[in-house]
Amino acid sequence: MLKPLGDRVIVKVQEQEEETVGGIVLANNAKEKPQTGEIVAVSEGTLAEDGKRVPLSVKNGQVVMFDKYAGSEVKYEGEDYLVLHEKDIMAVVE
Amino acid sequence: MLKPLGDRVIVKVQEQEEETVGGIVLANNAKEKPQTGEIVAVSEGTLAEDGKRVPLSVKNGQVVMFDKYAGSEVKYEGEDYLVLHEKDIMAVVE
Amino acid sequence: MLKPLGDRVIVKVQEQEEETVGGIVLANNAKEKPQTGEIVAVSEGTLAEDGKRVPLSVKNGQVVMFDKYAGSEVKYEGEDYLVLHEKDIMAVVE
Amino acid sequence: MLKPLGDRVIVKVQEQEEETVGGIVLANNAKEKPQTGEIVAVSEGTLAEDGKRVPLSVKNGQVVMFDKYAGSEVKYEGEDYLVLHEKDIMAVVE
Amino acid sequence: MLKPLGDRVIVKVQEQEEETVGGIVLANNAKEKPQTGEIVAVSEGTLAEDGKRVPLSVKNGQVVMFDKYAGSEVKYEGEDYLVLHEKDIMAVVE
Amino acid sequence: MLKPLGDRVIVKVQEQEEETVGGIVLANNAKEKPQTGEIVAVSEGTLAEDGKRVPLSVKNGQVVMFDKYAGSEVKYEGEDYLVLHEKDIMAVVE
Amino acid sequence: MLKPLGDRVIVKVQEQEEETVGGIVLANNAKEKPQTGEIVAVSEGTLAEDGKRVPLSVKNGQVVMFDKYAGSEVKYEGEDYLVLHEKDIMAVVE
Repeated sequence: MLKPLGDRVIVKVQEQEEETVGGIVLANNAKEKPQTGEIVAVSEGTLAEDGKRVPLSVKNGQVVMFDKYAGSEVKYEGEDYLVLHEKDIMAVVE
Repeated sequence: MLKPLGDRVIVKVQEQEEETVGGIVLANNAKEKPQTGEIVAVSEGTLAEDGKRVPLSVKNGQVVMFDKYAGSEVKYEGEDYLVLHEKDIMAVVE
Repeated sequence: MLKPLGDRVIVKVQEQEEETVGGIVLANNAKEKPQTGEIVAVSEGTLAEDGKRVPLSVKNGQVVMFDKYAGSEVKYEGEDYLVLHEKDIMAVVE
Repeated sequence: MLKPLGDRVIVKVQEQEEETVGGIVLANNAKEKPQTGEIVAVSEGTLAEDGKRVPLSVKNGQVVMFDKYAGSEVKYEGEDYLVLHEKDIMAVVE
Repeated sequence: MLKPLGDRVIVKVQEQEEETVGGIVLANNAKEKPQTGEIVAVSEGTLAEDGKRVPLSVKNGQVVMFDKYAGSEVKYEGEDYLVLHEKDIMAVVE
Repeated sequence: MLKPLGDRVIVKVQEQEEETVGGIVLANNAKEKPQTGEIVAVSEGTLAEDGKRVPLSVKNGQVVMFDKYAGSEVKYEGEDYLVLHEKDIMAVVE
Repeated sequence: MLKPLGDRVIVKVQEQEEETVGGIVLANNAKEKPQTGEIVAVSEGTLAEDGKRVPLSVKNGQVVMFDKYAGSEVKYEGEDYLVLHEKDIMAVVE
């Protein structure tokens, strides 16, 4: 099991569906879109100045949206994951 | 539904009207103007150092003005949105 | 109406008078001079760490001096304005 | 009257005397020397985090020394002044 | 013995296994993967503003994951180690 | 008299002695050595967040060591001085 | 005597032993290794925001490890020393 530290979460990136029109794959337009993924691990929270632990605002199982270039790719037991800082998560998809 | 995190809001960008004189489209002048959009989602607020949640100063339905290059484009259920940090919003249009 | 957010004010820029000697327009010297403008809108103030709202130190109707390259131009109801951060205002002209 | 804001003061720059030897103007050496000027206006002070106003450590009439490239030139009623941040003032000449 | 200071830990880097298919070594793909290592020494903790010592969130014997380019290589008694700042540790492998 | 502000001190730089061997001047090696000087003026101290004045940790008459490129040269009553920030002083020579 | 200020210590750098195999000097590998040195002077500590002096976490006589490019070389009474900030010390060698 991977246990993220600090303000980090680990997400399983969701494959981007190709946009098709009648079965023909369309080129994505130039401006890169954010990606989504499911959170599979969340840190115990960050440490406030008074020593209290502040839990992150996201939790396991949530699908989140983040910038395509955010985070670090990690491989664990043959699977690829992305380690993200909480601040890199733009929105939760509900 | 997209639920923005941190100090983020999600806006639906308003199309910029082209300036016309007698039906003739005029080139915009070189200096880019800010854009406007309607807020469709607001985060629960940011976390102050004492652990209290501080609500953002804008709310759903407000039309806001922001720099053309601020924010990240996201696509959700076929619609394009812009995710902005609160500090990138220059003014509310009332 | 435009309601500025954060530490922003909106000013109506005053046209710079050209320096003339006997009606002849003189080139301005190379070093750019600051501009002046009248404040037409002021934010409700910034948020201190203890959650209190701190009003800005300028108010509507004041003529202020700011660096020529400060601020963002906005157009509203056919009029051009400049959105400035309070810290970009160098002085009030009284 | 110009009323500086924030941590700003307004100074009337003193002309640098040219170094002469027997009436011959000597080139200044390459390394630029700081300039001096008299303070003609001081802001009401800065705002501390607890909301109290902290007066600046300089006052009107003092002659101060500052780096030649510090500050912004402003013109007011036909006179040139320099707007300086307090932190750019190196020393008071007494 | 090496006793790390501040927010530092010392890790013994684990050799990266080469990916093989039927005994043939495959080139790693271009995007560098993080490395793992075992923590062999941890500082006494950092100093909070109130003077209290805050222990790090990792401990000796833990296997941690970090960016390949993080840390400084040190040699001690013929062995190579990596000195890492706690913030460079992405996750604990449990 | 020059009265330094903020965290500044004024030093009279000591001439660097040339290294000689049997009267022959040796070229200094490439890596520049720090310089020393005597403190001739010290500011009243910096202002802490609670409004109290914190005196500097050096005083008049001390010989201090500082990086050759630190500080600003000032000329006062025909004499050259160096204005240094306290943090640029590496050590006191006792 | 040299008395370091702020968060500084003064170390006497230890000569790096050349790696030899059967008396033949081997080139060091490309990646520079940190250096070690003995602490010969430590500042009185840094000043916390509440005005209390916080002693450094190292003391005279300790052998410490630091990055080869950290610190400033100083010469004092014919001897070469290195002035280091406490944060540049990676570990104590015990």
